[in-house]
Amino acid sequence: MTPKKTIERISLYRRIVSNLLSSGKKQAFSHEIAKLAGVKSSQIRHDFMFIGTNGRANAGYALTELMGHIEEFLTGGESDNFCIVGVGNLGRAVLAFFHARHKNIVIKAAFDKDPALEDKIIHGCRCYPIEKANEIIKSESINIGVIAVPAEQAQGVAQILLEAGIKGIVNFAPVPLKLRQGIFVENVDLTMYLEKAAFFTRNSTKVSEV
Amino acid sequence: MTPKKTIERISLYRRIVSNLLSSGKKQAFSHEIAKLAGVKSSQIRHDFMFIGTNGRANAGYALTELMGHIEEFLTGGESDNFCIVGVGNLGRAVLAFFHARHKNIVIKAAFDKDPALEDKIIHGCRCYPIEKANEIIKSESINIGVIAVPAEQAQGVAQILLEAGIKGIVNFAPVPLKLRQGIFVENVDLTMYLEKAAFFTRNSTKVSEV
Repeated sequence: MTPKKTIERISLYRRIVSNLLSSGKKQAFSHEIAKLAGVKSSQIRHDFMFIGTNGRANAGYALTELMGHIEEFLTGGESDNFCIVGVGNLGRAVLAFFHARHKNIVIKAAFDKDPALEDKIIHGCRCYPIEKANEIIKSESINIGVIAVPAEQAQGVAQILLEAGIKGIVNFAPVPLKLRQGIFVENVDLTMYLEKAAFFTRNSTKVSEV
Repeated sequence: MTPKKTIERISLYRRIVSNLLSSGKKQAFSHEIAKLAGVKSSQIRHDFMFIGTNGRANAGYALTELMGHIEEFLTGGESDNFCIVGVGNLGRAVLAFFHARHKNIVIKAAFDKDPALEDKIIHGCRCYPIEKANEIIKSESINIGVIAVPAEQAQGVAQILLEAGIKGIVNFAPVPLKLRQGIFVENVDLTMYLEKAAFFTRNSTKVSEV
């Protein structure tokens, strides 16, 4: 059993380590990574031990090696095939964001109800009519769906994805989805980010990272 | 000092309570809210006490009253004025998402370098050329900026926002921003959501909410 929060932190470390590597750094101590991640050093050492790597007392963590451990842990060395439903502004933004950036996250197909989008390639991803979702999800071995449609269409889309055999959903629509047991769903709450920024901007002396 | 994680949970409770109210529910016990939030009941009781409300042993929390406490805590009863920089797909998606939905989150202005957007109203928000950012941010009392531009432009945009007096930033660009002390920044990591969904879909027996 791996807690969700652990995966969130490890995903954050991936970003931090990737940024450190881009800036030319080769080694980092737990307290340096802790500061960037907003957690305690002991948490860093605990999490890195959990994914099977140890720092050295004098030099900290070798970042290239650490990155390998993080990616191996997160991906199991495999790519995951995603699809996205909804090729509006949000869907296009997500396609642009992931296009050719993450070797383990591949968006294999986009579905939309607009027939004008059929067979268009948007940020490297082919669009299909939603009626073909079942067929394409199976033929492309897609197991995770991203929902980027308006709130009132989200449940219907989730149903289509589940019938096609999808096992995981990332839901950008601001509604709770009714799903059967065993389907993983991650709700993206854009409001949370703006509320948090508003709170801490208003109470600027009150922020605490941990 | 309020920890960031506390605000994230309280923002999540706002969404959960709002959904419960929409579905016609009037009361809820801490364990019901805990299950929806993926935290322990004791955490719920602790957090709700922190924002100044107590449940009743026989009836749990009165949801309308609870919602009032949550909103008062998060917003201090005030609206926050936001602007957004970047009116591409992501910027438009954010404008659409918040348009007329949250009474305390008001996006007062959008800035873009494309002159064709000048004075256009997109999802209720007026667009201005980026050169007018300083003037408009001051005249509209905007204190939080949302960055929705490509990675390589994000630092330059952050600089413009800070010079105009912005105190908080929500950064959608996948790069770390160099900011001076006292500026609150919240990085939105879209990759994290897809990585998390991939991890738990692959390891579907391993998920643990807490």
